Amino acid sequence: MDEEFDELIERMNEALRERSLTAIQATLTEQDPHDIARLLEREDTDDRAIIYRLLPRTRALEVFELLEPEMRSELILGLQDEDVARVFEEIDPDDRAQLLDELPAGVAASLMKGLSPTERALTAPMLGFDADSIGRYMSTEYVRLNDEMTLGDALTHVRHRGLGAETIYQLPVTSPHRRLLGVISLRRLVMGDPSALVKDHMRDPVFVHATDDAEYAARELIDAQLLAAPVLDSEDRLLGLLTSDDAHAIVERSEDRRAARQGGAEPLRRPYLTAPMWGLVRSRVVWLLVLAVSAVLTVQVLNVFQHTLDQVVTLALFVPLLTGTAGNTGSQAAVTVTRALALGEVRPRDILLVMWREVRVGLMLGALLGSLGFGLASLVFGLEFGEVIGITLLCVCTLAATVGGAMPLIARAVRADPAVFSTPFIATFCDATSLVIYFLMATWLLGL
Amino acid sequence: MDEEFDELIERMNEALRERSLTAIQATLTEQDPHDIARLLEREDTDDRAIIYRLLPRTRALEVFELLEPEMRSELILGLQDEDVARVFEEIDPDDRAQLLDELPAGVAASLMKGLSPTERALTAPMLGFDADSIGRYMSTEYVRLNDEMTLGDALTHVRHRGLGAETIYQLPVTSPHRRLLGVISLRRLVMGDPSALVKDHMRDPVFVHATDDAEYAARELIDAQLLAAPVLDSEDRLLGLLTSDDAHAIVERSEDRRAARQGGAEPLRRPYLTAPMWGLVRSRVVWLLVLAVSAVLTVQVLNVFQHTLDQVVTLALFVPLLTGTAGNTGSQAAVTVTRALALGEVRPRDILLVMWREVRVGLMLGALLGSLGFGLASLVFGLEFGEVIGITLLCVCTLAATVGGAMPLIARAVRADPAVFSTPFIATFCDATSLVIYFLMATWLLGL
Repeated sequence: MDEEFDELIERMNEALRERSLTAIQATLTEQDPHDIARLLEREDTDDRAIIYRLLPRTRALEVFELLEPEMRSELILGLQDEDVARVFEEIDPDDRAQLLDELPAGVAASLMKGLSPTERALTAPMLGFDADSIGRYMSTEYVRLNDEMTLGDALTHVRHRGLGAETIYQLPVTSPHRRLLGVISLRRLVMGDPSALVKDHMRDPVFVHATDDAEYAARELIDAQLLAAPVLDSEDRLLGLLTSDDAHAIVERSEDRRAARQGGAEPLRRPYLTAPMWGLVRSRVVWLLVLAVSAVLTVQVLNVFQHTLDQVVTLALFVPLLTGTAGNTGSQAAVTVTRALALGEVRPRDILLVMWREVRVGLMLGALLGSLGFGLASLVFGLEFGEVIGITLLCVCTLAATVGGAMPLIARAVRADPAVFSTPFIATFCDATSLVIYFLMATWLLGL
Repeated sequence: MDEEFDELIERMNEALRERSLTAIQATLTEQDPHDIARLLEREDTDDRAIIYRLLPRTRALEVFELLEPEMRSELILGLQDEDVARVFEEIDPDDRAQLLDELPAGVAASLMKGLSPTERALTAPMLGFDADSIGRYMSTEYVRLNDEMTLGDALTHVRHRGLGAETIYQLPVTSPHRRLLGVISLRRLVMGDPSALVKDHMRDPVFVHATDDAEYAARELIDAQLLAAPVLDSEDRLLGLLTSDDAHAIVERSEDRRAARQGGAEPLRRPYLTAPMWGLVRSRVVWLLVLAVSAVLTVQVLNVFQHTLDQVVTLALFVPLLTGTAGNTGSQAAVTVTRALALGEVRPRDILLVMWREVRVGLMLGALLGSLGFGLASLVFGLEFGEVIGITLLCVCTLAATVGGAMPLIARAVRADPAVFSTPFIATFCDATSLVIYFLMATWLLGL
């Protein structure tokens, strides 16, 4: 599979170098929309617009819907007005709402104005919700059933109304006032006795509210292993459907953010190769600065203990080893707990439970590393020095694991992003405290 | 939603403390299977078996299928033989194949022997494939159509054959020799003209081969935004279907492993609160040891430069700041590129492209941090010292970003896990090289 894609890239680059529109078009025929989307995500803005405009109309829409949200807005801004209006009219209302968020306000307003009344009506409800809430991601094109229908009638109803719907595999069942009564799968409609009643075959729905946090709601749907879940307003009336595709996209985006922040950077939100140089720098520089400024703390700690250092310069040799081990131990705990939190395995109120686990894990790790450190350091630098290293490692591992495990829970409790408080901050905190412990131990045990 | 779950936990803990089976049973009625699964993932082995045995039979199966693979095997080992045989008979064949991997070989063999012939026939094909290949995850219970059927006939065929199938939303169309011709969605069967032919409505399939790497194949399906994809043997004959549920589970597991390794630990593979203490220690200790041993490198570097340190002890103050910044810069690049690699945005052969981007990003970051470092250090410790810090930061950031960006690609090229070579190793590598650069600069600029 991947060799074919490599070949596609080579041929396209060749065609682009020659600026041959026929060659580009020839390269694009018979290609899978997904490969074209992947290709576009490697090209720069101008080439991307050229390729996109040469796609046949229906194919273009398919490719557009496979692109990342940021790529969509960039592409839109590079197209001519009539092309833009067409794409905007034809995409799904929930994709449209996402796109409006990414576009400059002026462009967004004029696009909304140009929309047909039906499509505008389908888009408007979403725009009333926070960008972080699941209301922004719901699909407003759905088919609903009423509970007195037979399965046969319901199937006929789906046949008549299902054409524009984003999914027909999970169908909400409502009262005449759009109050949700249950859900029934298309599978059950097809497999069941046509004369049976919907109300006898529908299931209690797993639903979310439009104002729910997007990641939380998406995980509800995914954990319940459903293809779609109804989205309700504050009075429990049906507003739309959340599809599993969208739910997975939301979760993946959150994971992406979490992974980036744990690595000490902001998420790129676009393919690596197309991200402008400045975008890459910007995603990293703030973090680096914040971390460097917190690292000034370590300079100060060392400054305080400078007289100790003057007396035994050998102490300086172990500084990177100790701070490194402390940072690693803290990061391990933080990453594990951050993930458990995201998956709903632990809650902020479990903090004592978590800390008690981490104290014990830290003690065990510290005992192990400490004995090793004691052995090696006392062989080379003498017994007393070995004691300093060993005891410092024991204390540092215990402290780092405990703090590392607690931090994400505290962050969540104060409604901050646990990933932000994870690895990088904890590493810096551990650096400083490990130095303090180290020099206190040295002063005490070496009698300085 | 979450308050209700908190309440469920309290009530269950109360009932377990009192060892009151009726209270446990009462707590379980009317609960959502998903909440029960979450509850089980918080309890210890004994309580888990007690709760599970008190579930009504159909509910129990539903809950079982929501559990993580490792939890399933543990639960199975805690149940009585007849319960085990029943669960094993009733779960889906692909879940069964996964379970067999987790169970001790003796238990697995005796369970396979006890299976009904039909179910054994459905399970056997999967067991021939590598645990890492997608063949292990495919569903062998599916409905296939032939291309000469009308849509109406096809729908009737699905009605008759679809009962045991894992999904009927994507239906493979095959020749009489099981050679794949296309796929058609249930949606199209329902919405289309019943007298039209399947061959005129089927689409070119996105398919995978049973021997394909599981994560790679799962991402193919997800990127194509499909509910299921055919799995073929080496002669392109249909073996089964990969469902999007399973594909997402595979990807999530890989992400989990990646996140853990980037945090310097092995993945837990089970809920945090139920992981035994020794499991937590084991997932971290090897990494900590490896990293600590590599950190001995920094001790040696400092040892080499001990005479320089003796002359200017102030140099020691900046060691944690410089190693920390180098480690952070390297990690940022590594995490970004590892992710881009997982998403298929870059390929190992793009290494020069990636390095060229990272050299420039590193230079920009280094110039920024270096000027700041120069300013601050020269204010406090004099101009010459400021120069050492500034130039060191510039060099270190450039080198760290370049190496950090290249490492994951090299790892993939030699078929190692890019995440393993990411953050922790790069941080340690950067620690050591930043020290070398630092002391060389100091020797040169301070004329030591």
